[in-house]
Amino acid sequence: MNETQRLSALEDIRALMARRVRCLDEKDWAGFADCYAEDAVSYSLSASGADATIGARAIADGVSGKLQGIITVHQIHTPEIDILAEDVARGVCPLADILSWEKDGRRHWLRGYGHYRQTFKKIDGSWRISEHHLTRLLIEHGSEEPTPLGAVGPG
Amino acid sequence: MNETQRLSALEDIRALMARRVRCLDEKDWAGFADCYAEDAVSYSLSASGADATIGARAIADGVSGKLQGIITVHQIHTPEIDILAEDVARGVCPLADILSWEKDGRRHWLRGYGHYRQTFKKIDGSWRISEHHLTRLLIEHGSEEPTPLGAVGPG
Amino acid sequence: MNETQRLSALEDIRALMARRVRCLDEKDWAGFADCYAEDAVSYSLSASGADATIGARAIADGVSGKLQGIITVHQIHTPEIDILAEDVARGVCPLADILSWEKDGRRHWLRGYGHYRQTFKKIDGSWRISEHHLTRLLIEHGSEEPTPLGAVGPG
Repeated sequence: MNETQRLSALEDIRALMARRVRCLDEKDWAGFADCYAEDAVSYSLSASGADATIGARAIADGVSGKLQGIITVHQIHTPEIDILAEDVARGVCPLADILSWEKDGRRHWLRGYGHYRQTFKKIDGSWRISEHHLTRLLIEHGSEEPTPLGAVGPG
Repeated sequence: MNETQRLSALEDIRALMARRVRCLDEKDWAGFADCYAEDAVSYSLSASGADATIGARAIADGVSGKLQGIITVHQIHTPEIDILAEDVARGVCPLADILSWEKDGRRHWLRGYGHYRQTFKKIDGSWRISEHHLTRLLIEHGSEEPTPLGAVGPG
Repeated sequence: MNETQRLSALEDIRALMARRVRCLDEKDWAGFADCYAEDAVSYSLSASGADATIGARAIADGVSGKLQGIITVHQIHTPEIDILAEDVARGVCPLADILSWEKDGRRHWLRGYGHYRQTFKKIDGSWRISEHHLTRLLIEHGSEEPTPLGAVGPG
């Protein structure tokens, strides 16, 4: 692997991370599943510790189920990615996610901050996520009376 | 176009996006206008649907007018950019923007999340925005009594 | 310096910026100090104007002291970086930082937005920060009663 190939891999993996969260926030679940290797393993935080979900389709089904009726915004900040071989990479991607939903006449929100820690594999010419962990730094949350935007816009 | 030229174009367009929002937040309107092609078209959300503004100068004038007296922070998160030819590219850039202003003795704020969807052209050796759309995922807003920072700093 | 070397330098400096804030937020102070040149100069805002701290170790000690007992999240958004020579670069990195701490039974928070303006030097094959300035666009802050997360989760 020469330096140009390493630089291309970095660009492609960043674009993959951006595509994954765009699909997530636009609820394009086929596009979201396509970001994962078929046998990908995703670990998510749960009340009872880390649970593993296996397979691109199962990961997409799990996430789409959890986020039904919730507006989400996921942000990927400047990451650290190491290209370990022509077809294997590892990365730490800082993320923020905002969730917003209505319940009992109030708007509820949650803002989380942390890191995706991932392994990537290049399969048939395309980089995909093969392992996915989420670690958290901070979660903020709250709720409020919904108010119309028009009344407070900056004019 | 070889791979190194594609990689250079990606770097240059990211730097353009970063420069555009720095100029915006520092209210450097000449620098902001310079990020657009002379005949650029910018579509912005308005109460009555999408309005088009045509021309780098008109776009800068429109934005500077709207943001008078308002502190702004625009963040560009990891984007997806496709280099379509040596001098044409298309991109989806996730963005967050925070607006903050005072009115009637209160601090008002608005936090928006969405995507810039843009076409870029390389003109006389420099990439510029030729078409600019904004789509929104979520807008949050509120107001509060201003309090001095000194009293609550983490020490 | 050819174009591939310039592109490599851009990648390496972005990774340095990402590593610096990951170390900061995970309170890895040895890793944080390692991001700076031994004779680095860091200017930080203080009540009495800009103060300079000199030396990687002194910078890390100063920051770690200030942030004791505080959860931090630092985000690096798309930056502008100029490679001036094979071993010298300059950059403007947009940043957001969130601080969260408890005091007198309340959760206090501060959210800051601004730019890191930095000079980088390549020393013994590794890019490091040699000069570091912080400029601010906006600081938001507040406090609230802590509430358990479980009661409000979207799931």
